[in-house]
Amino acid sequence: MAKYSVIGHRLPRIDAVQKATGKVTFGVDVRLPAMLYGKLLRSPYPHARIVHIETSRAAAIPGVKAVITGQDIPENRVGYAVKDEYCLARDEVRCIGDPVAAVAAEDEEAAERAVEAIEVDYEELPAIFDAEEAAKPGVPLVHPDLSSYTTTSLMGRRFSPQPGTNICNRQQRRLGDVERGFRESDLVFEDTFRTQMVHHGYIEPHAAMAFVDPSGQITVWCNTQRPYGIRDYLATALGVPMSRIRVIGTKVGAGFGGKISPRVEPGCVLLSQKTGRPVKMVMTREEELTATAGRVPSVVKVKTGVRLDGTIMARKVDILFDTGAYAEGLPPSNRAINDAAGPYKVAHLEINSTLVYTNKMRGTPFRGLGVPQAAWAVEVQTDIIAERLGMDPLDFRLKNAVDEGDPDSTGAPLHSVGVKDCLRQTAQAIGWGQPKSGPYRGRGIAALHKSPTSVLSASGAIVKLNEDGTLTVLTGASDIGQGSDTLLCMIAAEVLGVRLEDVSIVSADTEVTPFDHGTFSSRLTLYAGNAVRHAATDARQQVLRLAAELLEAPVEDLETRDRRVFVREQPQIGMPLADVVLASIASRGRPIMGQGSAHGPGTGLVEGAVPGWKYGAHAAQVEVDPDTGQVTVLKFVATHDYGQAINPTMAEGQIEGGVGMGVSCALSEEVLFDGGRVVNPTFMDYRILTSADMPPIESHIVEVPLPEGPFGAKGGGEPSVIAVAPAIANAIYDAIGVRIADLPITPEKILQALDKKRRHGPKIRG
Amino acid sequence: MAKYSVIGHRLPRIDAVQKATGKVTFGVDVRLPAMLYGKLLRSPYPHARIVHIETSRAAAIPGVKAVITGQDIPENRVGYAVKDEYCLARDEVRCIGDPVAAVAAEDEEAAERAVEAIEVDYEELPAIFDAEEAAKPGVPLVHPDLSSYTTTSLMGRRFSPQPGTNICNRQQRRLGDVERGFRESDLVFEDTFRTQMVHHGYIEPHAAMAFVDPSGQITVWCNTQRPYGIRDYLATALGVPMSRIRVIGTKVGAGFGGKISPRVEPGCVLLSQKTGRPVKMVMTREEELTATAGRVPSVVKVKTGVRLDGTIMARKVDILFDTGAYAEGLPPSNRAINDAAGPYKVAHLEINSTLVYTNKMRGTPFRGLGVPQAAWAVEVQTDIIAERLGMDPLDFRLKNAVDEGDPDSTGAPLHSVGVKDCLRQTAQAIGWGQPKSGPYRGRGIAALHKSPTSVLSASGAIVKLNEDGTLTVLTGASDIGQGSDTLLCMIAAEVLGVRLEDVSIVSADTEVTPFDHGTFSSRLTLYAGNAVRHAATDARQQVLRLAAELLEAPVEDLETRDRRVFVREQPQIGMPLADVVLASIASRGRPIMGQGSAHGPGTGLVEGAVPGWKYGAHAAQVEVDPDTGQVTVLKFVATHDYGQAINPTMAEGQIEGGVGMGVSCALSEEVLFDGGRVVNPTFMDYRILTSADMPPIESHIVEVPLPEGPFGAKGGGEPSVIAVAPAIANAIYDAIGVRIADLPITPEKILQALDKKRRHGPKIRG
Repeated sequence: MAKYSVIGHRLPRIDAVQKATGKVTFGVDVRLPAMLYGKLLRSPYPHARIVHIETSRAAAIPGVKAVITGQDIPENRVGYAVKDEYCLARDEVRCIGDPVAAVAAEDEEAAERAVEAIEVDYEELPAIFDAEEAAKPGVPLVHPDLSSYTTTSLMGRRFSPQPGTNICNRQQRRLGDVERGFRESDLVFEDTFRTQMVHHGYIEPHAAMAFVDPSGQITVWCNTQRPYGIRDYLATALGVPMSRIRVIGTKVGAGFGGKISPRVEPGCVLLSQKTGRPVKMVMTREEELTATAGRVPSVVKVKTGVRLDGTIMARKVDILFDTGAYAEGLPPSNRAINDAAGPYKVAHLEINSTLVYTNKMRGTPFRGLGVPQAAWAVEVQTDIIAERLGMDPLDFRLKNAVDEGDPDSTGAPLHSVGVKDCLRQTAQAIGWGQPKSGPYRGRGIAALHKSPTSVLSASGAIVKLNEDGTLTVLTGASDIGQGSDTLLCMIAAEVLGVRLEDVSIVSADTEVTPFDHGTFSSRLTLYAGNAVRHAATDARQQVLRLAAELLEAPVEDLETRDRRVFVREQPQIGMPLADVVLASIASRGRPIMGQGSAHGPGTGLVEGAVPGWKYGAHAAQVEVDPDTGQVTVLKFVATHDYGQAINPTMAEGQIEGGVGMGVSCALSEEVLFDGGRVVNPTFMDYRILTSADMPPIESHIVEVPLPEGPFGAKGGGEPSVIAVAPAIANAIYDAIGVRIADLPITPEKILQALDKKRRHGPKIRG
Repeated sequence: MAKYSVIGHRLPRIDAVQKATGKVTFGVDVRLPAMLYGKLLRSPYPHARIVHIETSRAAAIPGVKAVITGQDIPENRVGYAVKDEYCLARDEVRCIGDPVAAVAAEDEEAAERAVEAIEVDYEELPAIFDAEEAAKPGVPLVHPDLSSYTTTSLMGRRFSPQPGTNICNRQQRRLGDVERGFRESDLVFEDTFRTQMVHHGYIEPHAAMAFVDPSGQITVWCNTQRPYGIRDYLATALGVPMSRIRVIGTKVGAGFGGKISPRVEPGCVLLSQKTGRPVKMVMTREEELTATAGRVPSVVKVKTGVRLDGTIMARKVDILFDTGAYAEGLPPSNRAINDAAGPYKVAHLEINSTLVYTNKMRGTPFRGLGVPQAAWAVEVQTDIIAERLGMDPLDFRLKNAVDEGDPDSTGAPLHSVGVKDCLRQTAQAIGWGQPKSGPYRGRGIAALHKSPTSVLSASGAIVKLNEDGTLTVLTGASDIGQGSDTLLCMIAAEVLGVRLEDVSIVSADTEVTPFDHGTFSSRLTLYAGNAVRHAATDARQQVLRLAAELLEAPVEDLETRDRRVFVREQPQIGMPLADVVLASIASRGRPIMGQGSAHGPGTGLVEGAVPGWKYGAHAAQVEVDPDTGQVTVLKFVATHDYGQAINPTMAEGQIEGGVGMGVSCALSEEVLFDGGRVVNPTFMDYRILTSADMPPIESHIVEVPLPEGPFGAKGGGEPSVIAVAPAIANAIYDAIGVRIADLPITPEKILQALDKKRRHGPKIRG
């Protein structure tokens, strides 16, 4: 018999039919009567002073209802993480794509013509594009006012800018004595790795509709991962209280971190304020690929000391992140100091994370939040070390991988650690140690972990029982396609002993759902899930207390299951849940509602790492064509420790999605810049691998329960992307004996490396 | 200095600007893409068997998408109070207007043509129209299956049908020994009074939109007073769990009790289920006046025994209510046994309330819920008695009116009793005892009370604090134009020490707002108001507990005011409310939300009366034209004991509205039947007095605080209509010496009475 009635069962998503039949409302689907269409004029210069903007010609175009510039709006600095920009540029633009004016018109054509008719006088300023250059003294500054910048209210305080430089944030984590560790090592390895900017590549572009009514009440519909963040941003931008702003999250055609920050919302609101009519904006794909954000590119230097017996003694990781023109890269740069050492016992550790501004499209959180960048470096170097030591890469990992009770990077003991189980299952499934199946074929493996979110990251929930014993969950968490609505309903159903179809959910509406920090950092299962669990438990306690009176039985003897409350040992003594709810209304005047909140499994009182780490292992089998450099992934295995998979089908779907994205980021995707300009701004040129390009993916789930998680669950939206690239790179080395240090692993790089190898023998490229 | 910062202040309604600028969505305003228009075919017979319905001709009309009859839908009996009907008649129709088929089409015209094209074969059955006849044995039965009927789950169990008769409900209340009371009286008065059916006359007709999505999820937008009641009704009708139904209350263009029951919602849902498209219905005015419901007509016999010193010794009230074809008159018939004796000390009391079925348009709750009918009888008889005793009618009322501690009709002690204050203020304002200002002019006075609701009548609320210290109230209560949204926000603002503009509210959406029994019986201030007060207090406690830690001060020393939390005696030691909310999220993982519920001020454990009675007094000065019988109300004074007027301007508006309605019901309105058919189904023929017909109205507010009410408030949407008619009738007697026993007081009745008086001397008519 299954342990749970609902949890762990392979149930269809609650919105499967509506989605399959096209009856849900995505951001792009929102329509209102009398709505206008908005467009943004964007900077063509990477760095320039705005001398003058002439809008009269644009405003005179028939159908144009409003043209606004940075001078027309409140002078309030805003930002996702750091308040370092304006909704519309005021005096200066800092990257190509910066919005400088907004237009609303009766139709899209008129709006586009108006945007083209706006005349802007720019004075070009010196710009800087390379992160390593930007970090040096004496170079042009992207933000000369850096000393006055602060973080936003929902971001916490971990922000150490270096005014007078382009360094936006610098963080360090130390454990033990890293210099001593290197001294005590037999071998020390130093390697440098690079990761590219990739774009989130969601199918649905950013879309928003705003309506500001005559009393000033603002309603915004948008496809966001973070409705409360959008509300905070708008309240700051406009200087209005949050009680005047309602942000309603629509269905989201995927986000992956790319829909955390507002892109079109402020423009819609400002234009609606001006016109008194609803204003809608939908970004074009070119705008998406040139004027939103991508994964924060990085340069990662890893120095590792080992004993000859394979013990890792010390590790120093220096990561330089390029945040582009605005500091949306702050969270990945902060996260890096937790996670960058990899899931290994490292007694002596130092991690330095530096975030620099450049005059390019910004970096922002992207599935994995900085951890894939570090994993790329650490997991490739791990294979280099193992080879040098003459150890099997799997054995070397298993020897050093963390166990129950080992310290995390803050020194706090880890628990519920599933990384070795994941490594073993993955190795077995990929056929680790078996003979190669052909020439130019090889296998590679990589391990991964990811720390949970802590700072300011709370979730609230309400569970409201209906008079027929069914229930509604209210959560601020956005289901961005990953299925959190289904998962949260399953948790509530399990707690209250009803079926999944008895539960409905309303999510991501700032006005009616409790605060939730948002959908990012694989936090929903743990945080929103726990909030729902607590709320459902609160409601259940109310049910049990009244049922105990009505059934004349002690509360502790009662059970809820199959829509009934009954005496555990005498199930015939009981009553329908519905009758308890009605009795509570009738005799106590108390509609049954439960309320809960959660801050992850930790105390929430520290700003550093908290318990609840996620673990996994990835392995690839590849074939490389030595003539073309083409890499074919023949098979991919991903094993993830979910603690408890709330819905194994959904977990597997998440793993497959993450692996697919990881393969594409490893082998194909890259936002290419030339002087701050994105030169491949279409899906023809920015090539995301398709389902036709995908290898067979084998998903495995390990369950090392996290006691603090809902029913032991840890969640894990991001981990499945984290170690895909190093697993593939390690497999490529196994196949053809060359190592690639810079992502993506293109055929050109393979051919160059093969050429170098032929000339110099096997050696890491670069 | 004002006692409160918000409560008691004359603040504008929060939705004033939106309403004045036409930017709110009433039921008739809801539009969805691809929506269809629905229409109902209604019975032309008062009682008939349906032999056959032929829909093929209707279905063939271009644009028609669905035609359904009672045979196409689940055989589930439904009702507002008693489950005694089907959404669409199955085998039998019981009154003219019963829906027998429903049609959905691309436009209204096609839907109308389809309704006309449906052919129904009826076999007429004997019908009964007069309530007194219907109560007798051996007459045709409206509901032969009465023995199997039950109440709906939200209605409570007070329902005593008499199977084999047309008596749907019979209730009795006894206090003391009424026969002994009459024996000990010096004089006994027996009079019979009648009240007509009046229609609620709201300007916005019933309107609903329903969409059943491909997964079966049902969403209904409708202008209802009771979203939870509609959901309960639909769940029963369709046999689906409530978790699959969301009822969203739109703005309501008034209700007055007339929008408590579904009229068009079930048809919309059934048609949307069939077509897969949204379906909208809006009733025509003729449908409103012939196929909805009106105030339950009554025959009231009052027998009162008095001592010569003016002491009321005993009173027996027998009320016969005509509920028409369906038992929506149940609540007024139950309420009558609480309230019918009037606001007087009556040691020996018997009240008998009988509800009968007839084959007419149904009676339903109407502002006052049965109390205006009893007040009409009791307050006119009070003047008859006073005259006979040679006492001033005011003095006679003051001598007998209830005081603090007197028993209510159940024997429970009353408290917070303001009736004498109301009588005195009213008398003074109308110029009581002053000489008449001219011939054919007179003054009349009447007292009133109304008991609070008890049965199953709970309200829940949530108060959610935003990260900037503003807040949102979630309430299931519908603002039907009376302003409850504003009032509930004021309560939350007062509790938390913020301004009204810091509060937003979401109301009347079954999916996101806590259960609320609905807007009826003047219950919102007391029940929803208390729920919001409790929820706000809960949130405030969470604020204070954390602030106490942060400020290092005891919780009990803290105060919340002006958006701050501070030490009461050292206001400089404090912090903004916003900082406490953010700190709670950051350091406790706890978004601050409060939750509350209320069941009125009583224990809620009895089904009879509970504390929280409302009191008032009305007085009219009239002039009667003896040649035409035309009555002109020269001035009207209404004084009401609100306990505490949350917003005096809104309270006065409510009083003026109630008086206006009362004047119109007293002098003009009547739904006229001929053989079960309404013969005046237009606003030309059903004449509601307009603002041009209104007297100057003077509103007075008395505040005898109800300790259990929010800030002492009692509420009172209905009382202002209750004693208008008897005050006018008593003034007419004062003016011209004739009494009218049957409402409305038409010129014809005045002339007949004057004629009779000329022939027989002054005497009550009839």
